[in-house]
Amino acid sequence: MVGPTRFMTLLSCFELGVVDALRDRPGRTAAELGQVVGAKPDAVEQLLHLLVKEGFVGYDEGAGTYVLDGLAEVPEKDLRRALTYMNMIKVVALRQLFHLTDSARSGTLVGLKELYGYQGTLYGAVAEHRDLREAWATLMDTVTANIDPWFFGVIDVPSGARVLDLAGNTGLGAINTYRMKASPGLRVTTFDLPEKEAECLANFKLQGVEEHCSFIGGDVFDGVPEGFDVVLIKHFLDMFDKDDVFRILQAVNRSLAPGGQVNIMVPVYPEDIRDSTNYNVDFFPAFFIGATMGQGGPQKLSTYRRWLVECGFEVTKTVTKDSAAVPPDVIPVQAVLCATKTH
Amino acid sequence: MVGPTRFMTLLSCFELGVVDALRDRPGRTAAELGQVVGAKPDAVEQLLHLLVKEGFVGYDEGAGTYVLDGLAEVPEKDLRRALTYMNMIKVVALRQLFHLTDSARSGTLVGLKELYGYQGTLYGAVAEHRDLREAWATLMDTVTANIDPWFFGVIDVPSGARVLDLAGNTGLGAINTYRMKASPGLRVTTFDLPEKEAECLANFKLQGVEEHCSFIGGDVFDGVPEGFDVVLIKHFLDMFDKDDVFRILQAVNRSLAPGGQVNIMVPVYPEDIRDSTNYNVDFFPAFFIGATMGQGGPQKLSTYRRWLVECGFEVTKTVTKDSAAVPPDVIPVQAVLCATKTH
Repeated sequence: MVGPTRFMTLLSCFELGVVDALRDRPGRTAAELGQVVGAKPDAVEQLLHLLVKEGFVGYDEGAGTYVLDGLAEVPEKDLRRALTYMNMIKVVALRQLFHLTDSARSGTLVGLKELYGYQGTLYGAVAEHRDLREAWATLMDTVTANIDPWFFGVIDVPSGARVLDLAGNTGLGAINTYRMKASPGLRVTTFDLPEKEAECLANFKLQGVEEHCSFIGGDVFDGVPEGFDVVLIKHFLDMFDKDDVFRILQAVNRSLAPGGQVNIMVPVYPEDIRDSTNYNVDFFPAFFIGATMGQGGPQKLSTYRRWLVECGFEVTKTVTKDSAAVPPDVIPVQAVLCATKTH
Repeated sequence: MVGPTRFMTLLSCFELGVVDALRDRPGRTAAELGQVVGAKPDAVEQLLHLLVKEGFVGYDEGAGTYVLDGLAEVPEKDLRRALTYMNMIKVVALRQLFHLTDSARSGTLVGLKELYGYQGTLYGAVAEHRDLREAWATLMDTVTANIDPWFFGVIDVPSGARVLDLAGNTGLGAINTYRMKASPGLRVTTFDLPEKEAECLANFKLQGVEEHCSFIGGDVFDGVPEGFDVVLIKHFLDMFDKDDVFRILQAVNRSLAPGGQVNIMVPVYPEDIRDSTNYNVDFFPAFFIGATMGQGGPQKLSTYRRWLVECGFEVTKTVTKDSAAVPPDVIPVQAVLCATKTH
C-alpha cells in the first residue's frame, strides 16, 4: 500500500538534491537543507523521515542535524545505477501503471495512449518522446554494459562463425560479440527493423568494426535470415506471450541448419515462485503488461527449456546468474540458455 | 524500487475480478480465469505470480490451478476497507506523485495541475472532479466510521457544553458528537467554509439532529468563532506546516475563555522514527506534499504536545492508538490530545 509513496519519497530526496547537499557538508539542519535545495524546511524534514527510518540518513535529535548514514557507504557508481533504474521506473511506469487493469484487458498500453497519445509499444514511443527515450535508453545502456560481459563469458561462439544478433537494435550487441568473442573470420550481423540500419552502421564505423559487422533489416515475425551458425537472442523473449515466443523460436529454428546454435539471455523467475530473494515477479508482469508491451513477462528457466525442446532444439547448457552476485539495486535475475537445432 | 509495480499488480488482480472469480469457484486455471475476467491467460498468469509469492493465492503446479490462500481468510469487510484505501491511493496519489519533487519545491500540487488543470488543494479538487471525489470521500467515510467511536470514547465533553467542530466539513463529526456524547443542553456547531452550509444543514435534518446542531461559515485562518466550551480538531492539523498549525492553535486559543478545552485527533509519527511497525512516515509526507496539500504531514505526539504548550494550552491527556489494534491495511496511527487553555 505504501509502495508508491515510499518509492517517490526516496527518489525525491535525490531529485531535490538533499542527499548531495548532505554529502557536500554533513550535519546540516532541515532549515539549511531547505535553503540549499530550494524547498521549505518543513517539506525537507517530512521527506527525510523515511530515509532516517530506513537507516539511509542519520538524524541528531538534539542538534536537529542530518548526516548520510547507510547512503554514505554506497559507492557513487552504484548509486548512479540505482537512480538510473528509479528514474526509468518513474518516467516509464509510475503514471502508466494507473491503467494496468485496462492494459491487461486490452493487451495494449492504455497508459501510453492516455499520457502521450501514443498507440503502440514503449519501444516505438521512445523514438518519438525524448523523456521516455532518455529514461529508457540510459538504463538499457547501463544494463547492457553490466550484463553483456557475463553473457559472452558463458556462451561459446565457434571460431570464424557467422553470428546473427536477433533484435540487435543499433548494433551494441554485435560490437560486443565481435570484441568479446574475437576469432579469425568471425562475422556478426545485427537483425532488426529497417529503421535502425543507419544508426547501426554508424555505430559499427565509429567503433571500427565495420569490416566484421553488418546489418539486415526485417521483422522477426516475418522470418529470420538464413546462413548463420549462431543466433543470439538477448533481452527479447521476455517481451512476449507464449504464442509469440514460439513464433520466434520456430522461425530461428527454420533459419538454422541442423547443429546450428541459439544463445538466449533472458530474465527468469525463480523455480519456486515464492522465493523472497528474487524481485522479478514483483516487477516484470506489471512493467511489461502496463508500461512497455501490453503483454509479455519472463518465465521460469524450466519453462524456457521446455519451450526450446518443443521448438526443435536440444538444450546444451543453462546458467542462471547468482542472485547474490546481482547488486541489490538491479532487479532482473538473468539466465543464459544455449541450445542446438536437432530437427 | 518495486513499490509501484507491487502496488498495481495486487490492485489489478482485484480490479480484473480474478480474486472474485477464485472465491466463486476455486481451482480455476489461468485459461479459465482469463475467460471469466476478459483478459489473456498469459496476463492473468503473470499478474498472479506476485499473489502466489506473497501467499495470497495458492497455485497447484501439477494441475495448473489457483485457489485463494491467505486471501481466503480475510473477512469481506476488511478486504473492502483495504481496497478502498488502495483505490484512493491509486486515484489520488499514484500519478500525482510523479511530480513530488516539483510539489515540494513549489509548495503546490503540481500533479493536480498537470493531470486535472486544477490549481489548489485536493480538498478543492474533489468538488470539481468526480473520480477524485469518489475515491477520496469513500475512504474518508470509512476512516471516520472506524475511528470516531474511539475518539469520542477518549475525550470528555462536559454536560450541556457548547462544542465547535473545527473544519467539520458537512456535519458528520457534529452528528457523531451529539450521538456519542449526548447530554441535556449539548449543542454542536460545525465550522467550515460557507459553501459547506447547505449540505451540512441537510445532513443535520436527515439525521434528525437539527435542533442540536448548527453551522457557522468561515475560514479558520481568518479567526475562530467565540462562545464555545470545547473545540474539536479532527483530521486537520496534519494537513499543515508548523507555521499554519500555530496559526490554527493560536486562533483556537483566542476564541476560548480560560479553562476552555480543545480535543485533537491526528495521525502521529512514532517517537522513534525508525520504528518499523508504523507506516506513517512511509506514506504521509509524499501523500500530503505531493497529492493533497503541497505541504503538511503529521508530527510526533511529543511535538504536538510542545506546540500546544507554546500556544497557551496545558495538555491534560494524550492517548495514542495501540498500533496492534489498527488493522494491518489501515495506515494512520492516530492519537488524541486533550488540552485546556491556560492563558
